[in-house]
Amino acid sequence: MKALDVKIPKAPYTIHIDNWNLDLAKDIIQKHCQEEKLYIITNTTVKKLYQKKLRPLFSPNLKAIWITIPDGERYKRLSSCEKIHEELILKKANRSSLILALGGGVVGDIAGFVAATYMRGIAYIQMPTTLLAQVDSSVGGKTGVDLKAGKNLVGAFYQPKAVIVLTRFLKTLPKKEIINGLAEVIKYALIADNHIFYYLDTHYENIFKHDTQTLDKIIHLCLSIKANIVAKDEKENDQRALLNFGHSIGHAIELLKNYKNIKHGEAVAMGMVYASELSSSLGFLAKNDLLAIKLLITKMGLVTAWPSFTKTAYKIALLKDKKAQDENIRFICLTKIGKAHIEDLSLNTILQCLKR
Amino acid sequence: MKALDVKIPKAPYTIHIDNWNLDLAKDIIQKHCQEEKLYIITNTTVKKLYQKKLRPLFSPNLKAIWITIPDGERYKRLSSCEKIHEELILKKANRSSLILALGGGVVGDIAGFVAATYMRGIAYIQMPTTLLAQVDSSVGGKTGVDLKAGKNLVGAFYQPKAVIVLTRFLKTLPKKEIINGLAEVIKYALIADNHIFYYLDTHYENIFKHDTQTLDKIIHLCLSIKANIVAKDEKENDQRALLNFGHSIGHAIELLKNYKNIKHGEAVAMGMVYASELSSSLGFLAKNDLLAIKLLITKMGLVTAWPSFTKTAYKIALLKDKKAQDENIRFICLTKIGKAHIEDLSLNTILQCLKR
Repeated sequence: MKALDVKIPKAPYTIHIDNWNLDLAKDIIQKHCQEEKLYIITNTTVKKLYQKKLRPLFSPNLKAIWITIPDGERYKRLSSCEKIHEELILKKANRSSLILALGGGVVGDIAGFVAATYMRGIAYIQMPTTLLAQVDSSVGGKTGVDLKAGKNLVGAFYQPKAVIVLTRFLKTLPKKEIINGLAEVIKYALIADNHIFYYLDTHYENIFKHDTQTLDKIIHLCLSIKANIVAKDEKENDQRALLNFGHSIGHAIELLKNYKNIKHGEAVAMGMVYASELSSSLGFLAKNDLLAIKLLITKMGLVTAWPSFTKTAYKIALLKDKKAQDENIRFICLTKIGKAHIEDLSLNTILQCLKR
Repeated sequence: MKALDVKIPKAPYTIHIDNWNLDLAKDIIQKHCQEEKLYIITNTTVKKLYQKKLRPLFSPNLKAIWITIPDGERYKRLSSCEKIHEELILKKANRSSLILALGGGVVGDIAGFVAATYMRGIAYIQMPTTLLAQVDSSVGGKTGVDLKAGKNLVGAFYQPKAVIVLTRFLKTLPKKEIINGLAEVIKYALIADNHIFYYLDTHYENIFKHDTQTLDKIIHLCLSIKANIVAKDEKENDQRALLNFGHSIGHAIELLKNYKNIKHGEAVAMGMVYASELSSSLGFLAKNDLLAIKLLITKMGLVTAWPSFTKTAYKIALLKDKKAQDENIRFICLTKIGKAHIEDLSLNTILQCLKR
């Protein structure tokens, strides 16, 4: 098992990456568990697929208490949290209890927020089961839920006690979900590591074949970048904002499409292409790099063209973003493949590439 | 205006106490306000009474944006928070916005939790309007809401940027609410300062006459104790638990009465009498002290007898408390008037005084 330290002051923890080492996973869980029971928050799909396979984690001396939510982003709401809170009470969870967030991004965000708020905060461990959660959302302590008005508008920064990444979970992940996660992998490549970019270009077929070595390498590289950034800037005062590359436009697209028929990764891919085009037209990014980015994104099975809503529609959607400040947005631009920077841009500047 | 520093590491702030100095209050608000607008979260009763009187706080260069919730503990739920979150979005609050929590304990708890979770945390200032909030709940950053299963089971530790205590608010407070707050004043006297105890005994009539000097003195004394304790133990790992004196049984009583026809202070008063009786029967507290406590509580217009639910009912209610750990409860006992200590007690030990 490989380990990566997330050196957040006052809340440091370790990311453990392995194919399927349940003994070690059990040791890590027990290290953080003060009781002989563990509260597993997951969705119905993951429970069905993994309840049996994960049995060695629990028996004989750790009781698994399962709490499930329906599968899907539309359940990422405060009302789901309240149901889980009530269930935790019924199942006698107290301030010393430990939650295991077992699932993809939605489960991780909800379970993390439940942990952050149950009795004003209890311990939790992330065990991500999707590529998107394994390379990105399980690390860094961003937890929360959506509002009618938009995604992730309610939440807390609340760090897990550990993150356990078992890549064998990806075996049962549909290709669409692998592609969904690859968008975030490309993000890491673009903002921080051109080596990942060229590695992806030559090894992406291995990923779709679920090749363990390739997946391990990519996940490890992405998480190293993330661990490093969030340790320096836990609450996104500056550097952490780089991780939002592609996300301003991406979130706007998700909102405009009413979160229907579009995956987060798909929207982020479109957002990254948009941000790259804008970076190019503002003179930050070379044309060749822009073309290479579009090519790789297409190869990964992602779409580069953003949906054709009106400028006004995009404007309204962008203004709902957490990063919006009046008419200016803290926008992440690309300097070159492997390097990004922050620009305060007006809405009009941002939206100038809409017609192309 | 008197000032008290709450020296919480990483989140220090100042409590300002005055009768009605709106100029200074405005300076404090503007110091923490990055915009020319302020989001005031309050209830319908407080807004009706104070919207006009507080106008000097805002005009001409600070726009007041009012968000109201109905008056009453039963609105202290996640669903109210979600409504406020959505309203903040509609009214264009962003990460730099400032919330003013204007009201009693319920408003402070909800508004603080909304601030803690809106866009993963924005700044807020407490401006408490009830005696209970002024002497106790506005300081220390305990925010949160209730579940069906019990009070304050969901929340966060989230410190305000400042607390502004204007004692003239108490002029419009019904006597029942003054009495409600006095229970917490007695708590501070009992756990930390016998001087307050004897001062209350001789000056309580001044309080009911809204005498400014008496109120200022009492509020200042209580808040000094609270500021000191929460600075040492923000997240209630040990010493802060002393502030829960009378609250284990108090919360159980509130729960058993379904939060109807009982004020928090009334329940806490009964809980304090119970805890004092138990402390006496365990040999910690002298009989004379116990009698003096009952006498003072009665003088304040509070009831000393707890409601006669069955032992089993109390047991179930106590187990729902956040402080319960299996069959043991971290219970606050009184050593003498002005000094308390923590005991890990079994439910049976705790409930031995139920029949008297």
